[in-house]
Amino acid sequence: MGADPVVQSTAQPVAHTAAIIGTGLIGQGWAIVFARQGWQVRLHDVNATMLAEARALILQQLHELQAQGLLTDADAIIGRVHIADSLADAVKGACYIQENSPEKLEIKRALFSALDAAAEPDAVIGSSTSSIPASQFTEHLPGRHRCLVAHPVNPPYLIPVVELCPAPWTSADALQRASDIMTAIGQKPVRLRREIEGFILNRLQGALLHEAFRLAKEGIASAEDIDTTVKDGLGLRWSFMGPFETIDLNAPGGIADYCSRYGGLYQSIGADQTECVAWDAALVGALADERRGLLPQEDLAKRRFWRDEKLMRLMRHKQQDGDKHG
Amino acid sequence: MGADPVVQSTAQPVAHTAAIIGTGLIGQGWAIVFARQGWQVRLHDVNATMLAEARALILQQLHELQAQGLLTDADAIIGRVHIADSLADAVKGACYIQENSPEKLEIKRALFSALDAAAEPDAVIGSSTSSIPASQFTEHLPGRHRCLVAHPVNPPYLIPVVELCPAPWTSADALQRASDIMTAIGQKPVRLRREIEGFILNRLQGALLHEAFRLAKEGIASAEDIDTTVKDGLGLRWSFMGPFETIDLNAPGGIADYCSRYGGLYQSIGADQTECVAWDAALVGALADERRGLLPQEDLAKRRFWRDEKLMRLMRHKQQDGDKHG
Repeated sequence: MGADPVVQSTAQPVAHTAAIIGTGLIGQGWAIVFARQGWQVRLHDVNATMLAEARALILQQLHELQAQGLLTDADAIIGRVHIADSLADAVKGACYIQENSPEKLEIKRALFSALDAAAEPDAVIGSSTSSIPASQFTEHLPGRHRCLVAHPVNPPYLIPVVELCPAPWTSADALQRASDIMTAIGQKPVRLRREIEGFILNRLQGALLHEAFRLAKEGIASAEDIDTTVKDGLGLRWSFMGPFETIDLNAPGGIADYCSRYGGLYQSIGADQTECVAWDAALVGALADERRGLLPQEDLAKRRFWRDEKLMRLMRHKQQDGDKHG
Repeated sequence: MGADPVVQSTAQPVAHTAAIIGTGLIGQGWAIVFARQGWQVRLHDVNATMLAEARALILQQLHELQAQGLLTDADAIIGRVHIADSLADAVKGACYIQENSPEKLEIKRALFSALDAAAEPDAVIGSSTSSIPASQFTEHLPGRHRCLVAHPVNPPYLIPVVELCPAPWTSADALQRASDIMTAIGQKPVRLRREIEGFILNRLQGALLHEAFRLAKEGIASAEDIDTTVKDGLGLRWSFMGPFETIDLNAPGGIADYCSRYGGLYQSIGADQTECVAWDAALVGALADERRGLLPQEDLAKRRFWRDEKLMRLMRHKQQDGDKHG
């Protein structure tokens, strides 16, 4: 796929094997990410029904990506996705393992014990958890140095960022290998230097959501107008620049100049944002009422399909734009 | 322009006249927004040099927009942009006036006095201020009911949101007319129900920036990795959905379901975000050092050009996407 203009990354394909443990939506997404970059993928799930359905669901997604011009060889890609009947079969020969079990500490502790025992000695094991630090489910393991969080955003084949969050005992080598593998498969790894609740992405999202909830609660604007302010304002630059680069370019002398010009305003606003607004029944109910007025409950599924198509076309645009303009 | 697929909005052109007072970057941007939608535009600035240069600078921007496929008739559009030698000449016959003077209260107070005295009786007068509520510079005016803030994002011809923020005495009619005019020229007006520091956009940006500064200060991740988390993660959906729609679609049952599933996590994170991080010399200096390592000072201008081209291509993509997919 290396020379094809629709390939997501410029990284070279590597003939490697990844094991995907847990084959719900996130596991299916990971399978696509690895397989489209030339990896062999082995799927396993303790739920035999889910496991049996996973490959067909993955193929369906691949065909949608192909219809949107995001890949050209769905049938070849699914040929690299294999069902493994046991965990041991899944991880045999795999240099990378991605765990996608439910967000329950006891499940993850037990599963990581089994994975660490069965995995190849030099395999790296990443967890998709969005909320449980790796230290809570890997401390007891002989191979805890090769375990970490590799938190994707759903769906990972459209949203490339992966948060790599080491436990205190995760080795620098394992972190580096996880980062190299993510880069090789076309993802965008970011590294946390230590564990923190919510990692980076959900902390940033949470900060913005808290202010959005506050503005709604105080009656400053409708939820619809707050959404418009982001999708037709703030979110445009943030789809290709981060918040630091945005302000770095927004004053003649760069970020220091920006902070000197506008720091006072933001500090003053910030002093007014220190109370965390409760997401209580009254506030959530009012927001839900407004959303259901804009989008009836029965149209949620259709709108999710719309969102995924919007994302696919945005990623296609970003690929073409990057190819042309670096 | 109505049938042309590159037109930004589906609103019908209206043969109206707008006065743009203050012809720096923001004033020039407003001139483009009105003129490309068929309006006659009159420019005035107390600085004769700036006024003399404005039309040529606007034409340059129009040609860049045309080169990017965002309009087809730069020369016809500039034909609708006229220089007015006096404020009285500028506002004569104009149904809408947009003020873009420096962010100094005394300047705005004096300018609004002159504008209110000279404007047509039914003209609406909007200020581009990003930080001064209209109540502070319109209270003394006989026509204070038709004055409000209409805060754009730079450049307004690429970023369509406009924050309409009334003073306590702004009439519902003036607010409605300002909103209708913004919609007619292809912008996306949002309405604040009352004055608040920073309006909506900078309050949301500030909330996210405060968390980004906190993560950098605490050494959780590099500024570069925080930026990646937004541009390859959070910012993708936010370029076509707001934060409320995003979470509404991220749980099977909608926003109420989302809040019930993840509210606990966000409340817990939020409890850790209540202190406002100071943008002090040490923190700003460290961030500036990192940015200058990624982008040397002498490349800032070139990178701004890159940003504007990225924005133009994103807007072209959004237009085409909207045309095809609603």
